Amino acid sequence: MKSLDGKTIGFIGLGLMGRPMCLNLNKAGARLIVHNRSRPVVDEMTAKGMTAAATSSAVAAAAKTVIVMVSDTPAAEAVIGGTDGILGAVGPDSLVIDMGTTAVSATRRLAAAVIGAGGQFVDAPVSGGTVGAEAGTLTIMAGGSKEAVGRAAPLLKVLGASLTHVGGVGDGQVAKAANQVIVGLVIGAVAEALALARRAGADPAKVRQALKGGFADSRILELHGQRMVSGDFRPGGKATTQRKDLAQALDLARELGFDMPATRLNRELYDRLIADGFGDLDHSALIKVLDRE
Amino acid sequence: MKSLDGKTIGFIGLGLMGRPMCLNLNKAGARLIVHNRSRPVVDEMTAKGMTAAATSSAVAAAAKTVIVMVSDTPAAEAVIGGTDGILGAVGPDSLVIDMGTTAVSATRRLAAAVIGAGGQFVDAPVSGGTVGAEAGTLTIMAGGSKEAVGRAAPLLKVLGASLTHVGGVGDGQVAKAANQVIVGLVIGAVAEALALARRAGADPAKVRQALKGGFADSRILELHGQRMVSGDFRPGGKATTQRKDLAQALDLARELGFDMPATRLNRELYDRLIADGFGDLDHSALIKVLDRE
Repeated sequence: MKSLDGKTIGFIGLGLMGRPMCLNLNKAGARLIVHNRSRPVVDEMTAKGMTAAATSSAVAAAAKTVIVMVSDTPAAEAVIGGTDGILGAVGPDSLVIDMGTTAVSATRRLAAAVIGAGGQFVDAPVSGGTVGAEAGTLTIMAGGSKEAVGRAAPLLKVLGASLTHVGGVGDGQVAKAANQVIVGLVIGAVAEALALARRAGADPAKVRQALKGGFADSRILELHGQRMVSGDFRPGGKATTQRKDLAQALDLARELGFDMPATRLNRELYDRLIADGFGDLDHSALIKVLDRE
Repeated sequence: MKSLDGKTIGFIGLGLMGRPMCLNLNKAGARLIVHNRSRPVVDEMTAKGMTAAATSSAVAAAAKTVIVMVSDTPAAEAVIGGTDGILGAVGPDSLVIDMGTTAVSATRRLAAAVIGAGGQFVDAPVSGGTVGAEAGTLTIMAGGSKEAVGRAAPLLKVLGASLTHVGGVGDGQVAKAANQVIVGLVIGAVAEALALARRAGADPAKVRQALKGGFADSRILELHGQRMVSGDFRPGGKATTQRKDLAQALDLARELGFDMPATRLNRELYDRLIADGFGDLDHSALIKVLDRE
């Protein structure tokens, strides 16, 4: 028996992350109503028996539970609150789950609008990249009422290996901002360390090996450190996305009157990487900015 | 049968790290000749059947294999090359193993002197702190000839859970510098992220929990992140030591004409922490500099 048998779920945003997540919900037995800006991936989904809807509003009219997985804050605002957006069809039983990385202040605004229209809202951003999306092993950070997060939990557990209810609406996005700050800064840390090792005449691959299991060990050293050692920067997570997420965290800090000096520096380094024409590479390509010949 | 039965080992430097390491070698059956600047810990060791030597030179005269575990580069230079130092008693069968965190250039100089006197030299700095020293689970990064590292390996394996032969003399210290850069910067990353979370109204403990298993996960998030959440900054590794190691890595970078902007910023943050009077706290106390009320 599949865990989501018979459940109708709307899914908006079938990109690098959304597409494999949607396929996992389908495999778990959900009946999916999908919408995406570009058409080919929608055709792929309808060929698998899913139903296409012409607008976000039409998705929300057909499905009480709607997942939003779009690329940035303006896109989330358009899909939820814009013309033909979800808000046009929110009713008393609606549950909107935003799984993208959306600014905290925008999240709280959009949630208030959905709740004001009688619905429920959960922010449930993820970490784990396309690999985690495909394997259904994402790390999910949820914000919202206990009731709303409880209602979202069965389908979130299909998508992720770990689900934490962080706090109220927006707190999932706060956790994601914290996550992105750490990811960007740890990539910067591993990059400076491996570049230093190479300059000092040691083999960066051996140094990375030597650090495993010690205090310097991390998921980033494991995965992104290997990318730096091999020079294979196919994304994974793009440098432009990392830069956007850092800027979003810095915007949040500014609203709070809080200074994040290391995050500021890290964002500047990503600016340089992107200015050098490497924005579409994996974020681990940051080592190129530090370790020029 | 104990793995080091009958083997004579000299051990110089019985501080927070050296003392438990020495006890582990004793438990493994080695016959230990010890020397330390201050006396009480020497008395503790002789009470356990070890032999005290009055100088570093006397240690090297009594033991062909000598481990050095002192607090910084000047101390290592004094113990190895100073008056009554190891070099005064180095012979054809001598093996000097420096397990402290010593500058790369000083390491190469000291090693050349030992090798010039007919001995062998291994730099084998460690990561894992007092907890790893006590449990015999240190991460050990070794530099030296294949023969010398092979000779040191049986006793290093008593002290550590992981031993990597990084490369030639000094490459162990290069790996340790890389390790310390990553540790300092990742502590800074976790501190900025958890401080942001608290300012934004989320529970830092829940946020830390939410990030576990994702790309932001690390040994530092696990251990030092917990210290930041609980506000318990008993060391572990002291802020002053972290600052010294960062300065040493920056010295190495300067010698190489290599800029490490994030490491420079991180060292400045540690300077502020120490100026605020918190140098004896655990290095995770860095969050105090970022998250002032």
